[in-house]
Amino acid sequence: MIIDKFTALATDNAPGQEVRQAAGNIGNLMRGPIIAGRPVDFSHGDVDAFLPTPGASDRFSEALAAGGLQAYTEYRGSVDIRAELAEALAAFTGAPVSAEHGTILTPGTQGALFLAVAALVSAGDKVAIVQPDYFANRKLVEFFGGQAMPVSMDYLSGSEEAGLDLAQLKLAFEAGARVFLFSNPNNPTGAVYSRREIGEIVELARAFDVTVIADQLYSRLLYARETYTHIRSAGLPEEQVITIMGPSKTESLSGYRLGIAFGARWIVERMEKLQAIVSLRAAGYNQAVLRTWFREPEGWMEQRVRQHEAIRDDLLDIFRDGGLPTRRPQAGSYLFPKLPPLQVGLQDFVRLLRHQAGIIVTPGTEFGPYPDSIRLNFSQDHGAAVAACRRITEMVKRYRK
Amino acid sequence: MIIDKFTALATDNAPGQEVRQAAGNIGNLMRGPIIAGRPVDFSHGDVDAFLPTPGASDRFSEALAAGGLQAYTEYRGSVDIRAELAEALAAFTGAPVSAEHGTILTPGTQGALFLAVAALVSAGDKVAIVQPDYFANRKLVEFFGGQAMPVSMDYLSGSEEAGLDLAQLKLAFEAGARVFLFSNPNNPTGAVYSRREIGEIVELARAFDVTVIADQLYSRLLYARETYTHIRSAGLPEEQVITIMGPSKTESLSGYRLGIAFGARWIVERMEKLQAIVSLRAAGYNQAVLRTWFREPEGWMEQRVRQHEAIRDDLLDIFRDGGLPTRRPQAGSYLFPKLPPLQVGLQDFVRLLRHQAGIIVTPGTEFGPYPDSIRLNFSQDHGAAVAACRRITEMVKRYRK
Repeated sequence: MIIDKFTALATDNAPGQEVRQAAGNIGNLMRGPIIAGRPVDFSHGDVDAFLPTPGASDRFSEALAAGGLQAYTEYRGSVDIRAELAEALAAFTGAPVSAEHGTILTPGTQGALFLAVAALVSAGDKVAIVQPDYFANRKLVEFFGGQAMPVSMDYLSGSEEAGLDLAQLKLAFEAGARVFLFSNPNNPTGAVYSRREIGEIVELARAFDVTVIADQLYSRLLYARETYTHIRSAGLPEEQVITIMGPSKTESLSGYRLGIAFGARWIVERMEKLQAIVSLRAAGYNQAVLRTWFREPEGWMEQRVRQHEAIRDDLLDIFRDGGLPTRRPQAGSYLFPKLPPLQVGLQDFVRLLRHQAGIIVTPGTEFGPYPDSIRLNFSQDHGAAVAACRRITEMVKRYRK
Repeated sequence: MIIDKFTALATDNAPGQEVRQAAGNIGNLMRGPIIAGRPVDFSHGDVDAFLPTPGASDRFSEALAAGGLQAYTEYRGSVDIRAELAEALAAFTGAPVSAEHGTILTPGTQGALFLAVAALVSAGDKVAIVQPDYFANRKLVEFFGGQAMPVSMDYLSGSEEAGLDLAQLKLAFEAGARVFLFSNPNNPTGAVYSRREIGEIVELARAFDVTVIADQLYSRLLYARETYTHIRSAGLPEEQVITIMGPSKTESLSGYRLGIAFGARWIVERMEKLQAIVSLRAAGYNQAVLRTWFREPEGWMEQRVRQHEAIRDDLLDIFRDGGLPTRRPQAGSYLFPKLPPLQVGLQDFVRLLRHQAGIIVTPGTEFGPYPDSIRLNFSQDHGAAVAACRRITEMVKRYRK
């Protein structure tokens, strides 16, 4: 029934939707007074703390001046801009990218993810997904009538590997999954798959003829001494993998809604056909902002990574000191601390954080069966983030069993 | 099969995709020499001939300066902007609009159309559509596994009414269609439904409990002495109709990809849930451009309508003198002339127009079974459009049987 389909798409607790929630009877649950402090919205990065890439708005203005040529591009996006990006992405990921046949610009990486899943999944199809992983993955698979087969990741083991259960992945493929969808670095934990893990995924995908959707949104924000392995250059045939990236996170360009999918030509072909009825194209003028991507000023990206690493380290200390086991992110700007048993349920605790401590976080249940975890995007003002995480550990103390 | 689904989504002849077509063996078919002249792309409006609304780029820049607040709005779009639009749209359409519950901003009207169909149609559902009508309507219905039930429109009768076959519409409802999707003004003919026709559609929709999706993209570009009836204020309960509009056409703001759906709250609710996994939101900064909508400078819209009317009249004369029966558009900027029998097929004639006469048009087959028609968007430089249409009639002479 279509009504069930939309019930399953519940967005009440999705990042950014908190403004639509009523405070309800939260006052009755409150222990102790309000904890004052500068409000922090950890549901997404703060583009006022980490400003968009220099030159982005200039490229936009040039596109506007160019007029019709840039307003109406092919559905897959401006051929010139795709040519520039194909070169940059080939260098970044270590495998060739066909500008003409193997790239499509989309409204955000969300747009790319939607089109990729739509291109590969239809009613009854089994799709292996990771647990925990980006909340939309399961929703997308189910929206197209597919069956999500969760494969767990032991992200708190302390190992340097992501912790994917490869035996379980093999079982999912044996049981018929022909698509594997995963984010790397992992959202919400910041885990990066090791070379060995990527190698085993590739081997299994080859053996079972599985198509891989690799969401690499955060792969540029890689911390010191970490190694990142791009699955598209790790031995999978081109036609078996589509990679998704975009400048919304590290580069703070989310307000432009830009993403790209690249790799398997037959998937790009389907995605373009579908984009023609979903949104036509990524906004024409906005596409030009991608001309700044991978061409940031000398040292700009390195500084951005260092700044995030410093915040990461401070917040990790606070959570671990507060008794909240937390994976040390190897890339990206998410933290996924685990809470001790509390006297209130997770949804109530999240609402209390908001109303009592001025903090917005995303409940762990958005990422799988994690009723004892919260996700924070720590791309925030450093001082405000530190103060807010101290408030979180104080709140945990007040409400713990 | 998923492969059939994507074959049915063919975009090779869709407006704007002509750059992906090879010239092929077109030289072998050519009769007579090249017909020189300034190239005109009638597949979409020329935003260099009709410039975007004044102030649009200023509103964009302000949003960029506002930063995070405007980059990350609710999925349904900025609440402030929706409040402004709700007021303007209520006044324009003659029925109340709830800013909070009854509006959603989307990436273009295409985005709104996609979400609305997705919200209402699932496998096996019957959907009444008009023939001819916007090419995506049928594709959307079929993508979600629905069954399109075409209802014909006799747009060449010479009557002032659109010419919808209301008896056929009733039959479609009797046969089980519970959704009716139509564009008004009609794309590709420019026909506007009369008050009587809208009244009968309302009566039938009430009787059969049919939900109506009204695509009113072009409803502001209404020519002198024409009357437009908004179906949402014509007696349908609020929960039975969702209206779609946007500033991409008359206002030349297509490069920003902005649309809005408004009306039935339960449909908006579903659309927002889906938008969360399709593209998150209309690009944050771009949303601010909607602040110029329905607030154009005094006389600006009137002048734009007059200019289009003058082009319409000239092109109509050329086509009719050239023996091509053509509906006189009452609104919008599309013409849908009917060609006499030709010695070449429609696809070849369209390719010949492009390579021999420098003219891009959209084949009638994109809008239903019209292998003898072409669609032109005449929102072009006046002189260039007139010269190009003379080349079309000359081409028709050369290739007619």
